[in-house]
Amino acid sequence: MKLAFIGAGRLATNLAPALQTAGCEVVEVWSKTRASAEALAARMGCRASWGRVGDATRDADLYILSIKDTALTDVIGELHDGRERALFAHTAGSLPLSLFAEAGHERGAVFYPMQTFSKERAVDFRQVHFFIEASLPADHDMLHALAALLTADDHIHPCTSAMRRRLHLAAVFACNFVNHCCTLADDILQDGGLDFGVMLPLLDETVAKLHLLPPRQAQTGPAARRDQNVMGMQRAMLADRPDLQQIYTLLSNSIMNNNSHLT
Amino acid sequence: MKLAFIGAGRLATNLAPALQTAGCEVVEVWSKTRASAEALAARMGCRASWGRVGDATRDADLYILSIKDTALTDVIGELHDGRERALFAHTAGSLPLSLFAEAGHERGAVFYPMQTFSKERAVDFRQVHFFIEASLPADHDMLHALAALLTADDHIHPCTSAMRRRLHLAAVFACNFVNHCCTLADDILQDGGLDFGVMLPLLDETVAKLHLLPPRQAQTGPAARRDQNVMGMQRAMLADRPDLQQIYTLLSNSIMNNNSHLT
Repeated sequence: MKLAFIGAGRLATNLAPALQTAGCEVVEVWSKTRASAEALAARMGCRASWGRVGDATRDADLYILSIKDTALTDVIGELHDGRERALFAHTAGSLPLSLFAEAGHERGAVFYPMQTFSKERAVDFRQVHFFIEASLPADHDMLHALAALLTADDHIHPCTSAMRRRLHLAAVFACNFVNHCCTLADDILQDGGLDFGVMLPLLDETVAKLHLLPPRQAQTGPAARRDQNVMGMQRAMLADRPDLQQIYTLLSNSIMNNNSHLT
Repeated sequence: MKLAFIGAGRLATNLAPALQTAGCEVVEVWSKTRASAEALAARMGCRASWGRVGDATRDADLYILSIKDTALTDVIGELHDGRERALFAHTAGSLPLSLFAEAGHERGAVFYPMQTFSKERAVDFRQVHFFIEASLPADHDMLHALAALLTADDHIHPCTSAMRRRLHLAAVFACNFVNHCCTLADDILQDGGLDFGVMLPLLDETVAKLHLLPPRQAQTGPAARRDQNVMGMQRAMLADRPDLQQIYTLLSNSIMNNNSHLT
């Protein structure tokens, strides 16, 4: 089975080499920009193509699409001609399987690895959960087998588009918003000439605890103990950052409203 | 040197056994409630006392106070008589050293381990940063030596009350708010019959990345890529949880405003 990657961003940069290492044949990497396509293709030792996606290879059996959500519908449409028998799988959390049928593709699928990808750090796929959806049962089984090259069987889940959308929304809270709270902590520390590095053991422990306790039960801090003195003082410290003050107030109130078991 | 713990909560339950294991002599644990005092004292094999804090031992050289911030001022006052020569150290992030002088104590100090403590999980103190402040230089050195029994020398920092207050505020964002974002993710998953366990590899990776990249640079997700379609859809999914919808909007806007380097 020949694979082609449409998109050479953070996800493809992690997934394509992992699948190749696991024994898959990746024949081409396409990207809108030549530099991105060539960077990943050089690493893979495969062909690069760029520019119009219709010019991508017609020789693959499976096209894995990892491009911006906003571009996906157009790209799916443009890839149709000459690739009618191939399987197409997108990797987006919030877009439905139905995109493929709407563009006339018979064999559409979703291959969603729930993880945060950066080019600077290689993801260990053995820890990744995959959520799979396909229009044909045989394609579902094939993508399950593909995921099984990378991760444990109990990390591979059949998943409807509605469930995947919900997972993605939860991931925005548990990953993107978590990271942003750290950005805001970093701002607070930098304003005082302090380094974010001192937060890392605290952050590690915060997450390690969630392997043991449900998050609601693991909650600590001034809002969890309803300490109005400390909360008032901390709000006052943020007087010159009204944006942070507003987030502080909203999240503290949310902790107090959602942790009625505490105190 | 004889230690007494005033307070038998999450912090004392972690710190007292760690110091005892490191060779310190802990002579007594006091708590407002008998059950808490006896539970920790039994584990330590030391005396328990409870009720009026004035009835606690007068025989210790160092009293470590880990009680609610709101009770601390009163307790410091009530501990004065008969313990004029002892050293007192509180462990609170947001309360100043000056509390001790105001209550007539000559030897006051702060011994602040920046970590989140739960009774269910033993903290590994080798990873903890300690922030120390003392009214007398000799007491500062002594508390530095005490911390050095538990953690590496480069994890022990002299720290003014103003700096510590700032650290504590940053920790509220990097720990308490991070945990709460996970509580909200858990709510979203549970509403769909999904288990928070599938988020753990994502959460682990989110934090692992922060050991390598500054949080601003590690930011991913719909807001980071300014994907209005996905954000609009996710806001709509939260229609029955206006509290989450408000948090979603505020944090997404904050990501867009604070990550001008992205896209």
